[in-house]
Amino acid sequence: MHNYAAVLYGPKDLRIENLPVPEINDNEVLVKISCVGICGTDVKMYSTGKCGLEVPTEPMVIGHEGAGIVTKVGANVRHLKVGDRVAIEPTAPCKSCEFCVSGRYNLCDEPSYCSTPAAPGNLSQYYKHVADFCHKLPDNLSMEEGAAVQPLAIAIHACNRAGIKLGTNMVILGAGPIGVLCAITAKAMGAAKILMTDVVQSRLDIAKQLAADYTLLIKKEYSDEEVVEKIKSTLGGRPRVTIDACAFPSAQRVSMLVTKKGGTILIVGVGDTTVEVPLSGAVLREIDVKGSNRILNTYGPAIAAVASGAIDLKPFITHHYPLEKTEEAILLAKTGAAMKIIIHLK
Amino acid sequence: MHNYAAVLYGPKDLRIENLPVPEINDNEVLVKISCVGICGTDVKMYSTGKCGLEVPTEPMVIGHEGAGIVTKVGANVRHLKVGDRVAIEPTAPCKSCEFCVSGRYNLCDEPSYCSTPAAPGNLSQYYKHVADFCHKLPDNLSMEEGAAVQPLAIAIHACNRAGIKLGTNMVILGAGPIGVLCAITAKAMGAAKILMTDVVQSRLDIAKQLAADYTLLIKKEYSDEEVVEKIKSTLGGRPRVTIDACAFPSAQRVSMLVTKKGGTILIVGVGDTTVEVPLSGAVLREIDVKGSNRILNTYGPAIAAVASGAIDLKPFITHHYPLEKTEEAILLAKTGAAMKIIIHLK
Amino acid sequence: MHNYAAVLYGPKDLRIENLPVPEINDNEVLVKISCVGICGTDVKMYSTGKCGLEVPTEPMVIGHEGAGIVTKVGANVRHLKVGDRVAIEPTAPCKSCEFCVSGRYNLCDEPSYCSTPAAPGNLSQYYKHVADFCHKLPDNLSMEEGAAVQPLAIAIHACNRAGIKLGTNMVILGAGPIGVLCAITAKAMGAAKILMTDVVQSRLDIAKQLAADYTLLIKKEYSDEEVVEKIKSTLGGRPRVTIDACAFPSAQRVSMLVTKKGGTILIVGVGDTTVEVPLSGAVLREIDVKGSNRILNTYGPAIAAVASGAIDLKPFITHHYPLEKTEEAILLAKTGAAMKIIIHLK
Amino acid sequence: MHNYAAVLYGPKDLRIENLPVPEINDNEVLVKISCVGICGTDVKMYSTGKCGLEVPTEPMVIGHEGAGIVTKVGANVRHLKVGDRVAIEPTAPCKSCEFCVSGRYNLCDEPSYCSTPAAPGNLSQYYKHVADFCHKLPDNLSMEEGAAVQPLAIAIHACNRAGIKLGTNMVILGAGPIGVLCAITAKAMGAAKILMTDVVQSRLDIAKQLAADYTLLIKKEYSDEEVVEKIKSTLGGRPRVTIDACAFPSAQRVSMLVTKKGGTILIVGVGDTTVEVPLSGAVLREIDVKGSNRILNTYGPAIAAVASGAIDLKPFITHHYPLEKTEEAILLAKTGAAMKIIIHLK
Repeated sequence: MHNYAAVLYGPKDLRIENLPVPEINDNEVLVKISCVGICGTDVKMYSTGKCGLEVPTEPMVIGHEGAGIVTKVGANVRHLKVGDRVAIEPTAPCKSCEFCVSGRYNLCDEPSYCSTPAAPGNLSQYYKHVADFCHKLPDNLSMEEGAAVQPLAIAIHACNRAGIKLGTNMVILGAGPIGVLCAITAKAMGAAKILMTDVVQSRLDIAKQLAADYTLLIKKEYSDEEVVEKIKSTLGGRPRVTIDACAFPSAQRVSMLVTKKGGTILIVGVGDTTVEVPLSGAVLREIDVKGSNRILNTYGPAIAAVASGAIDLKPFITHHYPLEKTEEAILLAKTGAAMKIIIHLK
Repeated sequence: MHNYAAVLYGPKDLRIENLPVPEINDNEVLVKISCVGICGTDVKMYSTGKCGLEVPTEPMVIGHEGAGIVTKVGANVRHLKVGDRVAIEPTAPCKSCEFCVSGRYNLCDEPSYCSTPAAPGNLSQYYKHVADFCHKLPDNLSMEEGAAVQPLAIAIHACNRAGIKLGTNMVILGAGPIGVLCAITAKAMGAAKILMTDVVQSRLDIAKQLAADYTLLIKKEYSDEEVVEKIKSTLGGRPRVTIDACAFPSAQRVSMLVTKKGGTILIVGVGDTTVEVPLSGAVLREIDVKGSNRILNTYGPAIAAVASGAIDLKPFITHHYPLEKTEEAILLAKTGAAMKIIIHLK
Repeated sequence: MHNYAAVLYGPKDLRIENLPVPEINDNEVLVKISCVGICGTDVKMYSTGKCGLEVPTEPMVIGHEGAGIVTKVGANVRHLKVGDRVAIEPTAPCKSCEFCVSGRYNLCDEPSYCSTPAAPGNLSQYYKHVADFCHKLPDNLSMEEGAAVQPLAIAIHACNRAGIKLGTNMVILGAGPIGVLCAITAKAMGAAKILMTDVVQSRLDIAKQLAADYTLLIKKEYSDEEVVEKIKSTLGGRPRVTIDACAFPSAQRVSMLVTKKGGTILIVGVGDTTVEVPLSGAVLREIDVKGSNRILNTYGPAIAAVASGAIDLKPFITHHYPLEKTEEAILLAKTGAAMKIIIHLK
Repeated sequence: MHNYAAVLYGPKDLRIENLPVPEINDNEVLVKISCVGICGTDVKMYSTGKCGLEVPTEPMVIGHEGAGIVTKVGANVRHLKVGDRVAIEPTAPCKSCEFCVSGRYNLCDEPSYCSTPAAPGNLSQYYKHVADFCHKLPDNLSMEEGAAVQPLAIAIHACNRAGIKLGTNMVILGAGPIGVLCAITAKAMGAAKILMTDVVQSRLDIAKQLAADYTLLIKKEYSDEEVVEKIKSTLGGRPRVTIDACAFPSAQRVSMLVTKKGGTILIVGVGDTTVEVPLSGAVLREIDVKGSNRILNTYGPAIAAVASGAIDLKPFITHHYPLEKTEEAILLAKTGAAMKIIIHLK
């Protein structure tokens, strides 16, 4: 039995290797992986050998947006059986720390998160995972959609934290995959008008096709105040919610200037270590500044929303590659020309 | 200038009369009414001369789902001008009691609510109203839709209180106009699977066309336990949210038996004075039992949702009558064969 | 090594027996028990051989309000060491069901709860427990207080669910141990005026010493309306929060009639299977009817509140017995003359 | 009838003048002022002739922490009568904007806020105010306490927004009057351990007497990281809530570094226009950054808490002056040596 996997040895050193098939314990399942999405994190890891605080020192299997078929089931596992199609939530929280016990496992002190030094990724033919975090896919979801549930679950958690409600007018700064999924999600939650901004027109064009009502191309010469004015005039007022999906300093400044009194700024993504922002004026207007960390109980809603048709992931998935062309896929992702790239395994 | 109005003198004594055009004060506007929806309350008032605790002793103009054109503007009014098309939120809360000041004006101690003894209804050619509660309609909403915003705003308040989220599976007991609007609203908020029940198949057929994923015809011979089992097997599990939109004792019992642990029961509508229910078991499972009273800050979201296309009211509006046939319209409403009937005024 | 324990064989058949000392697994600790409080559940179990849905068919160690000293530590346990003094939260939730994962472990589908058929109680010299649910006691808490943390944690969860805030005026129906602890807790959360009711004057006298501002003795001949009027006149208005700590049908009716619009009714305790209540009027006034189930993340706050002096448990603890007099202690508890009885083990 | 008042003509130009007694409208009351507290805003206004965005161009009566006796009542006023003792909430929101209607009147678009260019202050013998925002004082509150209810209401709103709960461990940065009142309030809400910091030891000494469990004197040479470490070691861990009551850039940086994952930072007070902060790391740990603006429905709780004894304002009130010595009082306030100074009027 082969287990070919995409293993990162260091910056720009990605190798397809045959690894031993993992052994499962009583609480785990073995999954034959079908599809894995490529994420910005994979691109950063490939390009620089690290991502945020995660700096692998050993060769590491990449990939954390996986879906596949259960082929072995641990003795204690009851909700899954061999043959089940599952989407893999790429974490294994400790279940013992105060964050896990109080329902915020995404803040777990010591999670085994996929494709970090703590745990291998799932861009491999076989992958074992704690069964509780493997979510059964309904028949009307394809494996590709199953893989894309991962970034959708991130977007749903971000939108939950942002407090999207029926009729909300909002701005999303940054039209990359997460920004676009936030727009799709917010629409499914009833957002009324969504304005998206980006520095690349082609991304805005796709965003408009998929979810945005209005788009605004940000030019380098614009001052923060100009961006604020353009947003207000396009949207017909201030947004109650601003999602910062690019984490640029200018985006964080604009967020604080443009959001309506009593509104919410939600930052998804990792920004600079420090940033100079007009914080006092924002909080004095009781604008809450929040972030969202990964995924919290949103695989279930994500799968339900796709299954019910409330969310359509198909147009979001734009490119397909086999395992052996993973490097090519990552290089395409790096250009920003693709929305979601799926690696197919056999 | 005529001001023909539908005036209720007592049970089954509805007269079309020419009343004086009202004088506005500095905070009010005068609205030339275009459309008024017929509501179950109107039917009850017409049939029995009273509704709930409201027992008019004087002749009273009926109607509280109105939309029209502003024809006069009080001196203090700034957000409206002559010619504006508006939907009328049928209340004028006191703005001074603790409920008004703390943002729950729907619980106001002394609201002037339309078509109660405290204030006339708006099924008349001219109607004056406090400007703050007249909501400007965007160009892409018809006057009919403007009138239907009222029951939609009730449904949105109910769904807000029920805590609908993306991916929620739910049951709505009762497929009358409010039940159906709750389903439409819940879908717009991202509800995944909605099961609706009723005792009349034709209402379920419309419900399914408009929003329900599943329907269940309740037969008299069903025990509560049988209904619970049928809901669970149809929905593939227990609902996290149950909306009781009929307020029958059996519906309230079933709600408490079928809802998932930690879920919510939301009662919209007026039930019997007392009811025998399995309350202890429900609250011990931390199922919250709540109600919703009228409308609270939901005209804005309702108009935004219709304007953005998130909610389509057109198929919900099924019948049209001129003012002089109001009685006929009420009699049709009483049969339950219509979803929403609109009276058109000239 | 002895391990004497209080074992219930059936109604009124309680025996002190020497059991084997339990073996721990890698996630557990062995606790040498010092103190165990007697609870109403113990009284019910002793008197009738069952409690609520729990019907033991085997001899069962009773007791679930325990505190003691860690004597053995499993291999995976890091936050505790031999010699640590701990209060034992009497549950071991599954950590895998949707309720556990989403932070509501008190609703766990399959908890191993102490002194139910699922798990033995801790009225024994030695007791093993999952380490995550053993909470280290600060030096300034006695073992007796450590045992009494259990009912306090129940009261805190109830008050959390009830939404007590600084300045809240409230009513607590029932002045048994849980009602009194709810009053003590609510005061520590800033409640302004607390009125407690009971049918026994002596319990009200203690309640007034410990936390209640006002008391009302309920006489059999009072109608619901009379009770409502007496509460309103004593409190100077309606309570925003009503805690029903007795679960009598009359208490639930009074709750629904007396609570302020927009307020909360919190039911702690198990009532009759069905009850006839004026539910419609209550929920129409947007009074939320909720219950609280056991304990949810409130051991930490309970211990912190006692350690900081915000809550004083000493006057709440009224009687002391050795293990061999457990039966006598239970019979005293049954009379209602004691507030909290502690069994001391050696 | 005299109406002597403290009128600010410009920086350091404060005059005691006899003004006309104001005429009331139907919704207002006339209050004979007894006590007015001196606030940091008064000091700033006196010293520089402006405060934040408020720049008076006309002579202006200062003072906004007033209490007195009702001497005239408008025709529409029902909850007050001549002779009532009242604390004056120093605002008159518009009651029409979306913020007022939705229960956030502190964010009102056009409030008439006392001692801003929009409305005179109440450091005068007679003062008129909208009756809804005059709160009746119970007999057991003195007029001095009635005046001090204003900053207490600010602290309660801040603590409400911060989410203080029973057992919360927290830090308050800045031991001025608002910081100290936040500590007193947090204790009354059940906070367990409170650590306060300041750059002046004498303020910390008072803070410790009144509410703080621990204090930390911040020295200029401390790096942010050193402050973080000192807080963690003193408190025995990270605070779940950090209140920034000084709005220094270093305080905002420390807040973001020291607060526990999933916690809250609440900023009360006006900081620099922009600030350089480690925002990304904080929001990635899902620490919510919020501010509080003035007062929102907290006069009621403030009065109730003082009346019930949950909060004791007496030791907080440290100095007393007559009207004619207002300037002297302000100069004392400027030194930081006083906690709360009350001006007494006759």
